[in-house]
Amino acid sequence: MKSLDEAPGSESVRENNNWERENQSETSHNKILSDPWKPCRRSRATVKECLVKLSCCLGAVCGMEWYGYAVLGILTAILSFLMDMSVTKLLRAHQWLYMKLEGNSLLQFFCWTLYPACLCAVASSFSHNICPFSTGSGIPEVRTMLAGIEMPHYLSLTNMFTKFLGLICTLAAGSTVFLGKVGPFVHLCTMVGAYLSNLCNLIQADKKEEAVGEMLVIAAAVGVASCFGAPVSGVLFSVEVMSSHFALRHYCPCFFSAACGALTFRLLSVWSGDGETPQALFKTNFPTAVPFYPLEILLFAFLGLLCGAVSCCYLGCHRWMLQFSKTNPIFNKMLTTEKGLYSGMVAFLLAALTFPHCAGQYMASKHTMKQLLTSLLDSRQWSSQSHNASVQLGPEPLLEWSLPGSPVYLPLAVFLLMKMWMLVLACTLPLPAGYFMPVFVYGAALGRLLGEGVAYVSSTGLTSDQQWASINPGGYALAGAAAFSGAVTHTVSPALLAIELTGQFSHAVPILIATLLANALARSGHRPSFYDALSISKMLPHLPSLRKASPRLPSTPVGQVLGAMPVQLQKAAGPVEVQRAVNASTDTQIPVVDSYESQIILGFVLRAELLMFLHHCNTETLEKHLDEVCCIYPTSVLLSPHNTVQEAHSILSLVGAQTLFVADRGRLLGLITWPEMKRILEDLAKEI
Amino acid sequence: MKSLDEAPGSESVRENNNWERENQSETSHNKILSDPWKPCRRSRATVKECLVKLSCCLGAVCGMEWYGYAVLGILTAILSFLMDMSVTKLLRAHQWLYMKLEGNSLLQFFCWTLYPACLCAVASSFSHNICPFSTGSGIPEVRTMLAGIEMPHYLSLTNMFTKFLGLICTLAAGSTVFLGKVGPFVHLCTMVGAYLSNLCNLIQADKKEEAVGEMLVIAAAVGVASCFGAPVSGVLFSVEVMSSHFALRHYCPCFFSAACGALTFRLLSVWSGDGETPQALFKTNFPTAVPFYPLEILLFAFLGLLCGAVSCCYLGCHRWMLQFSKTNPIFNKMLTTEKGLYSGMVAFLLAALTFPHCAGQYMASKHTMKQLLTSLLDSRQWSSQSHNASVQLGPEPLLEWSLPGSPVYLPLAVFLLMKMWMLVLACTLPLPAGYFMPVFVYGAALGRLLGEGVAYVSSTGLTSDQQWASINPGGYALAGAAAFSGAVTHTVSPALLAIELTGQFSHAVPILIATLLANALARSGHRPSFYDALSISKMLPHLPSLRKASPRLPSTPVGQVLGAMPVQLQKAAGPVEVQRAVNASTDTQIPVVDSYESQIILGFVLRAELLMFLHHCNTETLEKHLDEVCCIYPTSVLLSPHNTVQEAHSILSLVGAQTLFVADRGRLLGLITWPEMKRILEDLAKEI
Repeated sequence: MKSLDEAPGSESVRENNNWERENQSETSHNKILSDPWKPCRRSRATVKECLVKLSCCLGAVCGMEWYGYAVLGILTAILSFLMDMSVTKLLRAHQWLYMKLEGNSLLQFFCWTLYPACLCAVASSFSHNICPFSTGSGIPEVRTMLAGIEMPHYLSLTNMFTKFLGLICTLAAGSTVFLGKVGPFVHLCTMVGAYLSNLCNLIQADKKEEAVGEMLVIAAAVGVASCFGAPVSGVLFSVEVMSSHFALRHYCPCFFSAACGALTFRLLSVWSGDGETPQALFKTNFPTAVPFYPLEILLFAFLGLLCGAVSCCYLGCHRWMLQFSKTNPIFNKMLTTEKGLYSGMVAFLLAALTFPHCAGQYMASKHTMKQLLTSLLDSRQWSSQSHNASVQLGPEPLLEWSLPGSPVYLPLAVFLLMKMWMLVLACTLPLPAGYFMPVFVYGAALGRLLGEGVAYVSSTGLTSDQQWASINPGGYALAGAAAFSGAVTHTVSPALLAIELTGQFSHAVPILIATLLANALARSGHRPSFYDALSISKMLPHLPSLRKASPRLPSTPVGQVLGAMPVQLQKAAGPVEVQRAVNASTDTQIPVVDSYESQIILGFVLRAELLMFLHHCNTETLEKHLDEVCCIYPTSVLLSPHNTVQEAHSILSLVGAQTLFVADRGRLLGLITWPEMKRILEDLAKEI
Repeated sequence: MKSLDEAPGSESVRENNNWERENQSETSHNKILSDPWKPCRRSRATVKECLVKLSCCLGAVCGMEWYGYAVLGILTAILSFLMDMSVTKLLRAHQWLYMKLEGNSLLQFFCWTLYPACLCAVASSFSHNICPFSTGSGIPEVRTMLAGIEMPHYLSLTNMFTKFLGLICTLAAGSTVFLGKVGPFVHLCTMVGAYLSNLCNLIQADKKEEAVGEMLVIAAAVGVASCFGAPVSGVLFSVEVMSSHFALRHYCPCFFSAACGALTFRLLSVWSGDGETPQALFKTNFPTAVPFYPLEILLFAFLGLLCGAVSCCYLGCHRWMLQFSKTNPIFNKMLTTEKGLYSGMVAFLLAALTFPHCAGQYMASKHTMKQLLTSLLDSRQWSSQSHNASVQLGPEPLLEWSLPGSPVYLPLAVFLLMKMWMLVLACTLPLPAGYFMPVFVYGAALGRLLGEGVAYVSSTGLTSDQQWASINPGGYALAGAAAFSGAVTHTVSPALLAIELTGQFSHAVPILIATLLANALARSGHRPSFYDALSISKMLPHLPSLRKASPRLPSTPVGQVLGAMPVQLQKAAGPVEVQRAVNASTDTQIPVVDSYESQIILGFVLRAELLMFLHHCNTETLEKHLDEVCCIYPTSVLLSPHNTVQEAHSILSLVGAQTLFVADRGRLLGLITWPEMKRILEDLAKEI
């Protein structure tokens, strides 16, 4: 995008924009001085002056945008920390109440079920009534915005407010509802980023327009990083999920902002008394001398294939559920009108099934998500622990998972079977919720089951080799988590995320192999990823998702989908025609043709120059032609109607905010701008 | 690139290519059967049949290219392992000889100096005489190839052979010459990749042309990964150094191939008896309980700034040296005619200065590069060790660095001061050599010096706080290595490389911060990076380097640099004109204009269709016009002469191997293909 800044056309566009902005600011300045309703004019002027001086001082060290990136990282980390703290408090309140009611099973049942049900109902009706755009993960929408399509509803202040409160309610519903934080938090960060970038623009008048897009890219990266305090994998995950091409000039800002965010996040947890120094979020204690044996790599590869297969099953169920909720009339009506009631009912059902005195004891339902993950990643073998209970070093991780008299595999198996459909059901809830962390925990359980199985087989002496006795099931859980979440989202970076979350680099290669194999299986047969399925279901104008759903659609020739003939002017147009064109169109670039009959395209004129032309004609009452007064800029890139939508999209992304003209052998056929591209993609999405 | 495959023009191009290829294969088949000189026709046919069957079986599981990626990873890992083994043997031979001569200083001196001098002279004259393109790092050339420019000399088999042997000689010269392995190894990998991709093309006839480019991208990534056995950071480093945009569809193949490479590399070292299980290359034993204190982050930030400043100094010296070696007549003559002599002399000088009985004792010259790095990354404080020598756990790391009666800072300081100019001098050697690892070690020494300084200050009781006593200087060395090498190459991924090489994730955030700050300082003022300076000095047609050297050059309008008017045909051209055009041009797409006078561009015809047209005309002796027989394809994208070179380059990268036409208001001005772009960039490079 930067490359086209030097183009003559765009430079003039910018000059004109500046000119218009100056005019506007002049008028607004006059308005301020003349407007008696704006108070404290003097003090506001002083504050503004101070701010300008400050920005000069700061700007001398490095570009203002870098301060913006740092502030973005720090702000999102504080948001993330505040959210975690509130959620912890709410979860503790629930636990405290539940413990107080010990002895009365009925009251305990109501406490266990109604608390999350109420929270979900509140979150749902809150978002339904205040900002309906705040439901769901938000990642599909952020992806679409990063692809260049403007969606102002999704960056509004109300949305931010609703999403923040709604997400706290969802997370406080705990592991019964089993939903995560990543997606909505990324969405929140992009909103913060958009506001910060507007602020930077206010301070720096000569700021480029593209800075907004850049800030969104960085905000998406910093969202994941601040969510986990994992700067490297946060950036890579967001790059992989969000975009299909990544410009390396965003690399440094992304890492800078993510490092600021991760540092703040970890320092906040140090200062709040969680630890003595910044550490990994889920600290593990894997043996470092011999983390794994070379032959175990085959088992890790098998785990990857297993995770891939299960992810295909999960994604299939999820797609079916999305389709069902759209086509089933009862479901559809509930989801459009009675969102709060529906959320409450589903949450009640999920909570009732996980009630600890009933089926919940078979799936460790008392654990929070974080505790679940910590217990699954434990490096000690559960099976050996349950045999000789006297040598238990720390009994917590096992306590919830083992039942007296039954093997440790039973709760894991029940957990896996039940959570599969419960998770699919939870994904239909119309509230702000993330779907990455549940999948991550599910994968960890899958890996743990395999690891425990291997440990059991080796301990019963089926293998004579001594080395297998000291096998580490936690490593399998880690690899499973990375592989399953990678397969569901069609990304590789969860491998790195798993390493960064636990601070364990010893298992890097097996984790990477498992994730790659799971991805290979999940991507085979052109199946859409989790986020692609959401994009398609919501009919978002996101080209890569469309391509996955129907590979032929993006190859539609542009000529077939072009809109109505644009407003155009002939070379010899007079003031009346120009006036008509200015009234009929709002585009900044208006095409000029040789004559209305030949339609041979010559270039374009700028709207601002047309306005000046009209102004001149009105004051001087001269009859002049367009080409005598206005400069006709040559079109920079001309498409043919045979170019595909995909190509037009790529070239539009490359040239930034410019207009593309479509011409067939010199004759103008239409033009493509971002709003036009949005319309085209939405039309294509309807055809699926 | 993929997007344009569906365009009608390119599809026909491919069909025609297939048609031509089939014709060729038919004729070659006939040739084989009729050619009496080709032996074992039957057995060759059998082998070919078996191979076809095998490829069918393999192709049923996944695409053939994935086997190619796996083989690429495994092959490069084997190459890397073989190289390491030969270098170790040669280094041991040198050490053995040196030890045997203990007592006779003069003989020891000759052994110490002549061994590396001879090796360097051999490497230099070998590469000079067999393939002059094999000298240097190779990364600037690989970058240029990845940007789309074809440079067949750099992928030849002789180059591969020369580079492999030359690199072994360079590395065997040891830490006196102080050169590394990464750059040339990446170049080697791209050559292997190019051959494998040709092989894949032979097996799969319907393979797309773009696969060669894809294989090169992956080979560059797998080169770094196999060199260190670090899959994640290898991929990221290569992406960051090589390209300015990265397509995410390369992500999975890159990681897959890198994981195969890293796994093979580590398994090979396990099987050769280096360890029990795949481990990090430079295993460290940092304390995990409290890796660092929050306040130390400020020190890490300071270290980053220090590294950035020193890197600016180093890069400045390097640029001066490049300029000097080009302008100084004596130097220039030596470097062009007497390469072997020059290399031998410089190596002798460097070795004489590092002779252990003389100045060498002040800079731990007996250590190999690997030992140097291991000793610098040691987590124990050297200063405390030298105080109470009785509690030494493993004395090796200290022995070489400390001198009786002098503080431990002296050798470090001498090392830093001396190695700076020695490294700059070594960079002028005309032999295959990498420049990343020396910079990495240098940065580690810089970090160690700061770390030891901090440890000394805290141990002398200047700070009353107890926590500072247990400070870990190894962490500073690690951060320094990442920051300095990142600053020199203008990349962030050395931060991850440092983590992956040592398997230490505990220091992730401080390392990242130090690297980012060092980068910020090194990139300020639009200074070129190490590789950019090499590109500019070699006048390679690499656009991003050009932009760094002279930001205005890539904004030159295309119209100013267009070559001669291309061969064109008018709509009504007859066979004679077509014959003339076919003789005059070798392009696959020949532009068609309305008439030679008007020059209005209509589209293009394919060379293959023109040949068929001529064939028809010759056989049927009909006088037909071009537009009656051949299909005139519309031009997909039309540039204006006001588009900049930068834009033309971006669009050319986007549309792949197609031809771009430049037209001004419909009139053809010229065309841009990759060879034309290469010429334009080379012309621009000469202007600097």
